[in-house]
Amino acid sequence: MTFMPEQKAAVLIEALPYIQSFYGKTIVIKYGGNAMINDQLKHKVIQDIILMKYVGMRPVVVHGGGPEITGFLKQIGKQSEFVSGLRVTDAETVAVAEMVLVGKINSEIVALLNRRGAKAVGLSGKDADLIKARKHLAEVYEQGEIRKVDIGFVGDVVKINTAILTTLLAQDYIPVIAPIGVGDHNESYNINADYVAGEIAGALEAEKLLLLTDVEGIYRDYQDKDSFISTLTLAEAREMILAGNIDGGMIPKVEACVRALTGGANKTHIIDGRQSHSLLLEVFTAEGIGTEVVK
Amino acid sequence: MTFMPEQKAAVLIEALPYIQSFYGKTIVIKYGGNAMINDQLKHKVIQDIILMKYVGMRPVVVHGGGPEITGFLKQIGKQSEFVSGLRVTDAETVAVAEMVLVGKINSEIVALLNRRGAKAVGLSGKDADLIKARKHLAEVYEQGEIRKVDIGFVGDVVKINTAILTTLLAQDYIPVIAPIGVGDHNESYNINADYVAGEIAGALEAEKLLLLTDVEGIYRDYQDKDSFISTLTLAEAREMILAGNIDGGMIPKVEACVRALTGGANKTHIIDGRQSHSLLLEVFTAEGIGTEVVK
Amino acid sequence: MTFMPEQKAAVLIEALPYIQSFYGKTIVIKYGGNAMINDQLKHKVIQDIILMKYVGMRPVVVHGGGPEITGFLKQIGKQSEFVSGLRVTDAETVAVAEMVLVGKINSEIVALLNRRGAKAVGLSGKDADLIKARKHLAEVYEQGEIRKVDIGFVGDVVKINTAILTTLLAQDYIPVIAPIGVGDHNESYNINADYVAGEIAGALEAEKLLLLTDVEGIYRDYQDKDSFISTLTLAEAREMILAGNIDGGMIPKVEACVRALTGGANKTHIIDGRQSHSLLLEVFTAEGIGTEVVK
Amino acid sequence: MTFMPEQKAAVLIEALPYIQSFYGKTIVIKYGGNAMINDQLKHKVIQDIILMKYVGMRPVVVHGGGPEITGFLKQIGKQSEFVSGLRVTDAETVAVAEMVLVGKINSEIVALLNRRGAKAVGLSGKDADLIKARKHLAEVYEQGEIRKVDIGFVGDVVKINTAILTTLLAQDYIPVIAPIGVGDHNESYNINADYVAGEIAGALEAEKLLLLTDVEGIYRDYQDKDSFISTLTLAEAREMILAGNIDGGMIPKVEACVRALTGGANKTHIIDGRQSHSLLLEVFTAEGIGTEVVK
Amino acid sequence: MTFMPEQKAAVLIEALPYIQSFYGKTIVIKYGGNAMINDQLKHKVIQDIILMKYVGMRPVVVHGGGPEITGFLKQIGKQSEFVSGLRVTDAETVAVAEMVLVGKINSEIVALLNRRGAKAVGLSGKDADLIKARKHLAEVYEQGEIRKVDIGFVGDVVKINTAILTTLLAQDYIPVIAPIGVGDHNESYNINADYVAGEIAGALEAEKLLLLTDVEGIYRDYQDKDSFISTLTLAEAREMILAGNIDGGMIPKVEACVRALTGGANKTHIIDGRQSHSLLLEVFTAEGIGTEVVK
Amino acid sequence: MTFMPEQKAAVLIEALPYIQSFYGKTIVIKYGGNAMINDQLKHKVIQDIILMKYVGMRPVVVHGGGPEITGFLKQIGKQSEFVSGLRVTDAETVAVAEMVLVGKINSEIVALLNRRGAKAVGLSGKDADLIKARKHLAEVYEQGEIRKVDIGFVGDVVKINTAILTTLLAQDYIPVIAPIGVGDHNESYNINADYVAGEIAGALEAEKLLLLTDVEGIYRDYQDKDSFISTLTLAEAREMILAGNIDGGMIPKVEACVRALTGGANKTHIIDGRQSHSLLLEVFTAEGIGTEVVK
Repeated sequence: MTFMPEQKAAVLIEALPYIQSFYGKTIVIKYGGNAMINDQLKHKVIQDIILMKYVGMRPVVVHGGGPEITGFLKQIGKQSEFVSGLRVTDAETVAVAEMVLVGKINSEIVALLNRRGAKAVGLSGKDADLIKARKHLAEVYEQGEIRKVDIGFVGDVVKINTAILTTLLAQDYIPVIAPIGVGDHNESYNINADYVAGEIAGALEAEKLLLLTDVEGIYRDYQDKDSFISTLTLAEAREMILAGNIDGGMIPKVEACVRALTGGANKTHIIDGRQSHSLLLEVFTAEGIGTEVVK
Repeated sequence: MTFMPEQKAAVLIEALPYIQSFYGKTIVIKYGGNAMINDQLKHKVIQDIILMKYVGMRPVVVHGGGPEITGFLKQIGKQSEFVSGLRVTDAETVAVAEMVLVGKINSEIVALLNRRGAKAVGLSGKDADLIKARKHLAEVYEQGEIRKVDIGFVGDVVKINTAILTTLLAQDYIPVIAPIGVGDHNESYNINADYVAGEIAGALEAEKLLLLTDVEGIYRDYQDKDSFISTLTLAEAREMILAGNIDGGMIPKVEACVRALTGGANKTHIIDGRQSHSLLLEVFTAEGIGTEVVK
Repeated sequence: MTFMPEQKAAVLIEALPYIQSFYGKTIVIKYGGNAMINDQLKHKVIQDIILMKYVGMRPVVVHGGGPEITGFLKQIGKQSEFVSGLRVTDAETVAVAEMVLVGKINSEIVALLNRRGAKAVGLSGKDADLIKARKHLAEVYEQGEIRKVDIGFVGDVVKINTAILTTLLAQDYIPVIAPIGVGDHNESYNINADYVAGEIAGALEAEKLLLLTDVEGIYRDYQDKDSFISTLTLAEAREMILAGNIDGGMIPKVEACVRALTGGANKTHIIDGRQSHSLLLEVFTAEGIGTEVVK
Repeated sequence: MTFMPEQKAAVLIEALPYIQSFYGKTIVIKYGGNAMINDQLKHKVIQDIILMKYVGMRPVVVHGGGPEITGFLKQIGKQSEFVSGLRVTDAETVAVAEMVLVGKINSEIVALLNRRGAKAVGLSGKDADLIKARKHLAEVYEQGEIRKVDIGFVGDVVKINTAILTTLLAQDYIPVIAPIGVGDHNESYNINADYVAGEIAGALEAEKLLLLTDVEGIYRDYQDKDSFISTLTLAEAREMILAGNIDGGMIPKVEACVRALTGGANKTHIIDGRQSHSLLLEVFTAEGIGTEVVK
Repeated sequence: MTFMPEQKAAVLIEALPYIQSFYGKTIVIKYGGNAMINDQLKHKVIQDIILMKYVGMRPVVVHGGGPEITGFLKQIGKQSEFVSGLRVTDAETVAVAEMVLVGKINSEIVALLNRRGAKAVGLSGKDADLIKARKHLAEVYEQGEIRKVDIGFVGDVVKINTAILTTLLAQDYIPVIAPIGVGDHNESYNINADYVAGEIAGALEAEKLLLLTDVEGIYRDYQDKDSFISTLTLAEAREMILAGNIDGGMIPKVEACVRALTGGANKTHIIDGRQSHSLLLEVFTAEGIGTEVVK
Repeated sequence: MTFMPEQKAAVLIEALPYIQSFYGKTIVIKYGGNAMINDQLKHKVIQDIILMKYVGMRPVVVHGGGPEITGFLKQIGKQSEFVSGLRVTDAETVAVAEMVLVGKINSEIVALLNRRGAKAVGLSGKDADLIKARKHLAEVYEQGEIRKVDIGFVGDVVKINTAILTTLLAQDYIPVIAPIGVGDHNESYNINADYVAGEIAGALEAEKLLLLTDVEGIYRDYQDKDSFISTLTLAEAREMILAGNIDGGMIPKVEACVRALTGGANKTHIIDGRQSHSLLLEVFTAEGIGTEVVK
């Protein structure tokens, strides 16, 4: 793509008010889905984060990694069982999850950011006790009743200790966080990365939580493509979850938004990560991308 | 102008390496010529400076104001005489020049920047003794000899006291400087704004000096439009001045570049201020605009 | 004047308790009237301000300039009309006022202070949006009714943004302020310097506001020279204004005191600027000079 | 073990001079061998590091993990080939090494330290580009000649970027470092942890490098148990390596000491990690434990 | 005493939790009695204080000196009279007390601490007005009534000005304080050192007040050695004083604890200074030494 | 004494250049002689020091106390023997000297300064090892030879540790120093206060050393009152000492000046302390008082 100088100028000037209003603000990015698998998209996400950093924002990255964990478990011949959509996670499984998330995916994101000129530092929830967690019980609907089932080392966030993030952000580092929590007895928990991102955005009172997904956003009726929602209030979001009007895969995203807003974040956005430079477009342009959930 | 999202993204991403490499760097801008007269251009220069500030650069603005001074002198019925292109400047004339530069042009630039979200502060050379000056003698070529002629309160820079600039830059202000110097007996001197900009860029060891002019740049032979020069070294620039190969109007610009580079600035650029957003294009894109003079 | 050593010692020791009690305190000085016209008085005011600075006080200077503006308007052949004692101020008039105040009077005070060893910086209300203003309507009494009349760019203070003053005071600069305010659309307003001084003293929660005038102070009955008032409370001052017992010329002075005290200043003083070193005597000795207005 | 109060007092007082002289000093600990496998020893190493931290030292931990990597490779059915004692490390192998070192061993040490009251943060060489590396070629002796052999992603340290360590130490964190280096193209390298510890001790100009091993120390003749060496100079150490008088397994340890001392560390110690609380005894008592290598 | 390495390790590890919990905490030590007379005990108290300092606590020492004052008064042939156990203190007596406390005892403690590696600074209540005081009247019980008797320059604490302590503690000095207070007319007062220590511990909101005495602690019935009390609440302490169940010599100690706790200290301890290293054992071990008084 | 306002102003304005040039500078004052005995003079010295402090100087006071020590020794029935004008100082004598200097004279000066609004802190050479000292041997001229005689605890300065002075000056305290030095074995030494003042002025690189004496200054021929010297260079001073042209009592004063200048002080002054406010007159007026010794 080549542009005339005046075209370039016009685009940069359009970005100015966004740069001004987000100066010095914390932006939490949940990085996952296609944007993490497709090499071209990955490359663009990295550029977008670097751009945010250099125009004065303070990005914090939280990533997932389900597919790679599944792949690795397969490689070591371990079958996964699922209860209500959650992987039953024994000690060996959580150890594999931690290794893949912390020692592979997190490391790679950190290295990509550093190669492009950032100063990124990888963290898991164990570092400086960033993510204190406890066991999450799965809920099974049986004969009209909800039964709580122990599925092992799947965790809920108990507390985010933001001290290490504050230290790193003050020195211009980009923290990159793997969704592993630590329990009272040092046991590791695999936690849904959307939830972790939401909790961290809340604890940091972030300006924005940006959730990269593989869909366009939220639909009032998820089977009706004409019912797309640009803006949703916290109250509406809660209501739609209760009413069962949110597609299963989107529930953790919307939940993450709710937690972020409740905790103290200012705005949250569910964005289509399959679109090239979607982060950048959301942050730097007037374009409405995906669905925003606001207070 | 409207663009597709991917076009916007492409432009912003092209700007990234420039944003990265000028982060935290001081950029001195000599603002003058058409860009100061034409309202549309003026508006765009202001936007460009704000953009620089918000992506982490530290702009310092030095402005001229010859035409307005002339206008005002006419209004009060004062005729100006010129010697070797320099206005003979008696006490009344320099008082008018100071009033127009400090109390009108400078104030207006400051207010425009503030209205767009910056924190600008106007300075003259008297503020905190920023520009110490002494009398400049005009050189007249008569009968093959150079004679020095006293033309009143036209000044040369003796010393730039950068303390107030450092204080303001550290607190994120944009200093806007009128080219009035102060002598040992508190007398005011009108100084060529190009020279002031060059000296300030040198004293601040600026990353860049950007001189807005009303021409495309420098020509090896200024009567041959094909002899345009993109890059000139300090040595070549000095040589061309001595050899008389630089057009009269361009001499102060090239001299300013020489002083900036000699003092400690890194790069200097003579830019066509008649082009829309020329500052922005110079700083944020790969486009070669005008002529750069380098060490 | 020559003194015996013991005499010098006695005077300096008398000053000690005043030096101690004003250490580190902000003192706002409204500089105007004769003390600004008479060269000898001017010289002594400058010395007094420097002395305050060097014994640890933080002086802030606000100046007027009516006579010089009038002189300049005359020079360009512009007639001024007055409504209720206020100059009708069209666009050209306010431009002249700004040029004279900012580009001439302010510059000169700054330079005088610097030559005596201070670090002074001139400011107008546009610098860092120091004085936000809006149109002031004149009040005309006609047939027993008050009618509001638009007299152009005469302003009221809307807000004092003290940030730039704090930055400069922290670095030991003396701010010198011209009474030009800036409106929402960047229009300039000429504002009564007494009011500006009062508002700034209030906003800075100054220890003292010192108003230099051309009278001895306030009289209970301004036609009876025996009714001089040394100390006036805020309540009494308001009452006297309402009762019409304050001479027209003194009203803005007393109003300035009221605004300063209401805003947070500790004490205000109306001082006879025609007396040599009156500032110094007020601040460093037990002598009662002029009238003080207190809470 | 129970003691009389006077016995406790005597031991604490004996520790005082050591506490005094190491106050605020950086101590790099290479944690490996038996002390990392045996649960009781592990527990005691953690206590020793916490004690160092709380009496004012600044411990930095570097760990190895060979046996666990081997175990994991076996589990995924991957055979390792060795050349000159170094594991041939293809892309899959280095990925496994990184996952085990960063996502398992490092995480566990961090969590153990945190549970005992420290603030530990895990790092790999990728974090903030801590360990820049390049390929290490194995040396094979064949027919009297040395041949360099490419064995894949086994690395040498090119540069230690201490910035992130300085940031963390200044905020009272304990950095825990996995010996993974990063190359120019973001490729990971597995590096001998002894070398990494030596390079980091040198780059930080540490007071001490403490290498936990599974032997008593160095012997002049490693087959003669009576030839134990308490103190070795840098020169002697280099000589012994060249002369082939150091047992194969000890060469990297001694090399690490040489690098630390050359880089700027003050003292280095090869300590028997099989002895309970050997770190504590080395640092807090007069006991000579193991072999020290000094300048 | 010699110990096996594992014994040393065990003792140091036992100290760890105490070191951790008192890190950065202020510990006020009332130094007096036998521990100040016996040279061996003195030496050990100094070591204990240095150890506290080096493991991160912030010790503050308050000392008495009654016996030395008595000795010196005898030497100059001055007889002391006592009223209700308090020395009648005329101007000459308080001058001697001040000289002995400040110029002899305090100096010696400071020098001893410095020789062992601390940075100690001696203070009296006059330094920076640390201890403001007023006359204390003795109470005489006569014919069933309490009569207040003026016994001269014996003082009560009016106010502790902690500024100088904060300055010194922040720079890692150990303040050593003589119990001399200063009155409104600069007169000196001799004050009971226990009270001074209690007031200072309260004003600093110290973690601990440690009072060295010449007894084991407090007994419920001080004539029954089986009635020893390990822990006493503030309420119980007050009750026992009122009920007259505390031995005369112990009353100022218990009073000091009450003042410390009321003022804001966390815990107070009455310790047997005749026991070797009793401070160290109290602070670094699980041993219960003496009586603690708590909220 | 009463003055007209204009007289007061004239004196204050005369002080201004001195206030300006000593702003932030360290001034060491040797306080002794009549000015310490006469209550009126004492009161004025205190005022002078407070004035210096409040106009921005950093006074440091060093005091003597010979007469009071002699008085006290007499009181305890101790006879003093003198060798070459120096008191033979056994252990008891130095203990008395320390008590009188530190516990009486120093305390009193501190209290006087505090009552007048300063924040003074008393120090002896033991505090933070301020004055490290060793034994000074007296020189006896016998039969044309110089014999060194041990006269006990009379000391020479070995080293001034300025750290505690720097800490206190930075927090706006006035340090008041007693001339007691401390030896390697914690023994106290009585040191000539002039020498201590000179060494401290040198170590602090003071702007001025002001020595209060009981004479007008130095005479070229001390028996000829017409030979008064206003300014003496370091070289001349040394020469006059060697040539025996300085009166015995003045030798330590001149020596003190020499040490101050050699160490790094800028100027030294021997001032007549019998004159009222002599410090103030020296520092704040053009009056030449006493003799200055300069580099």
